[in-house]
Amino acid sequence: MSTSQTKNVSIDTIKEFMYQVLLKVGSDEENARMVRDTLIAADLRGMDTHGIQRFKTVYIDRIKKGMINPTAKPSIIRETSTTCVLDGNNGFGHVNGTIGMKMAIEKAKKYGMGMVVVRNSTHFGIAGYYSLLAAQEGCIGICGTNARSSVAATFGDEPILGTNPLAIGIPSDEAFPYCFDGATSISPTGRFEKYVRMGKTVDKSWASMKGGKPIEDPKELLENYPKGKAYLHPLGGSDEVSGSHKGYCLSEFVEIMSSCLSIANFLNHIEEEKEKSGKFSLGHFFIAINVECFRDLNEFKKNVGDINRTFRNTDKLPGHDRIYTAGEKEYETEQKRRKFGDDLPLVTINEMKELSSFYNVPLPF
Amino acid sequence: MSTSQTKNVSIDTIKEFMYQVLLKVGSDEENARMVRDTLIAADLRGMDTHGIQRFKTVYIDRIKKGMINPTAKPSIIRETSTTCVLDGNNGFGHVNGTIGMKMAIEKAKKYGMGMVVVRNSTHFGIAGYYSLLAAQEGCIGICGTNARSSVAATFGDEPILGTNPLAIGIPSDEAFPYCFDGATSISPTGRFEKYVRMGKTVDKSWASMKGGKPIEDPKELLENYPKGKAYLHPLGGSDEVSGSHKGYCLSEFVEIMSSCLSIANFLNHIEEEKEKSGKFSLGHFFIAINVECFRDLNEFKKNVGDINRTFRNTDKLPGHDRIYTAGEKEYETEQKRRKFGDDLPLVTINEMKELSSFYNVPLPF
Repeated sequence: MSTSQTKNVSIDTIKEFMYQVLLKVGSDEENARMVRDTLIAADLRGMDTHGIQRFKTVYIDRIKKGMINPTAKPSIIRETSTTCVLDGNNGFGHVNGTIGMKMAIEKAKKYGMGMVVVRNSTHFGIAGYYSLLAAQEGCIGICGTNARSSVAATFGDEPILGTNPLAIGIPSDEAFPYCFDGATSISPTGRFEKYVRMGKTVDKSWASMKGGKPIEDPKELLENYPKGKAYLHPLGGSDEVSGSHKGYCLSEFVEIMSSCLSIANFLNHIEEEKEKSGKFSLGHFFIAINVECFRDLNEFKKNVGDINRTFRNTDKLPGHDRIYTAGEKEYETEQKRRKFGDDLPLVTINEMKELSSFYNVPLPF
Repeated sequence: MSTSQTKNVSIDTIKEFMYQVLLKVGSDEENARMVRDTLIAADLRGMDTHGIQRFKTVYIDRIKKGMINPTAKPSIIRETSTTCVLDGNNGFGHVNGTIGMKMAIEKAKKYGMGMVVVRNSTHFGIAGYYSLLAAQEGCIGICGTNARSSVAATFGDEPILGTNPLAIGIPSDEAFPYCFDGATSISPTGRFEKYVRMGKTVDKSWASMKGGKPIEDPKELLENYPKGKAYLHPLGGSDEVSGSHKGYCLSEFVEIMSSCLSIANFLNHIEEEKEKSGKFSLGHFFIAINVECFRDLNEFKKNVGDINRTFRNTDKLPGHDRIYTAGEKEYETEQKRRKFGDDLPLVTINEMKELSSFYNVPLPF
């Protein structure tokens, strides 16, 4: 992008700015730290649509509308040595997610495994952040969330599943842990938002209008899926030949893990509830598995690193000179952005300026 | 298929025949029951390539070659309240899998969660069988296995990952549990074997020759992938645009869960070991999560059923009059085959006749 369309801002500036605004909007320091850390992780890792770019519209504006309670902490509904059901009390998804995964890790450290599910929660940012918390503690972390309906079932002609991301973090002896963090649809909706800003068309395999016409203009999806008139396709596409049923079934798995154990809203009930009460009542799940119950952690890490190194050393397809492993691109982006900052679109810069003047939080650029 | 190419055999006949041959080949009754029950589940569920059709070549012939020990039982290497590492002692994968998942279920019943990993194992048949054992016991079951290299990494030009199936079973209030059981590649190799028998070409998106040429003749893959000269594509295809990296990362997840915790062979070391010692030394993993630690089981089952029923009632794409849910097609095939038997290809009938005369086991057709 040309410099006229973006402005480079240091990561520390973005981080401190978000923290100060969160305090002004009523969040206590502990919650503000957890939200800030999750959001800045998205910016650092290049998952642009889940950090500062959604800060105003998806978090601050919703707090003002009463859709997110910035001071809420999750409360325990039911607990065993390895499991826990939390009520998110309509607080920040990031707070529920951070506390949820930390509880799962604590249980795994004591009993080998831990699983925490959350009801009555809100958008928790990037799922990968929580799985990485586990990986940093010598655990395999698995987590996911449901989301408003935007994805069709295989052979379906309306949005019913959320993009239902699944994230997995695994310790490794390399500079970064294994980290898979992906929507169970081919593309997340956030990529459509990004393509609108870039003025680009989207791949025809990603989404369709009701009736089946493939979408090329990203605005067509964004305007029509909330009305039930457009939808994304599951990983594997729209046809069983290309494995559509696999992405669809994995998405249902994330839906069940997120909503059926915690008694959260599911599928189109998420949107219905939001229309009725202004609340999302999303569900999440967090699993931690303690590697040391199975094997020495350092030997395990080397084994995972060996697998990654084997991939990188396999023959490459003509036209490609590099094979990436899970989390490698995000790690490289993080190194770059820590040093050089992030090129934010002007719309985001303007949102920051707006928040800055409204909440009287200085913006050092 | 015309009747000249197949013969209809009752499921009870296939089941009893496999059991008797297993006893003759040296298996004890307990092992023979576990192997028979897993194999017949594949035949019943329509996963034809994992039952009687592989009975002679993948199990009986390999026992004769000393590659599978028909009397081996798994032994415990390391155990905690929720976790266990088993050595499969080169026995039947089905025995290691059945015992492994049953241990995980037992742990989940006591402590909420259980996870068992296995090293030194062999081909365990359909992964879905084990995840369904958990679902029948009120648990969410998750399992997988690694396998010989046949799938390329994204942008890779040689087979390195196995088809690494992932299976998930979840209790529901419907006639069948949720059951996802799929290779993390678009297609398993077994489907190529089936298309050879049917004289059909395969979809060009499923596999490529080294260099990138798409494969249409299924024999091309089967002959060339063991030599490293052809490979399958991960779920999501060969390009990041269609989500190739997602299938590739999920496949690596199954590889790590199967091999790095149990210290089994991984990636191309599976084939190397087989060449060297005649042993596969595969790894598997089995997870059980006790639903009742989170919520009343019947309410949970109804919730899962409600999700399935919602899918079935959504609008259908023009040209489609039905939306299936995970495990539904397999359940319908099972009902049909229990009643009408299975149409076996003549090559399988001939293998049964051969085994019948060699082991003096009567074949009632």
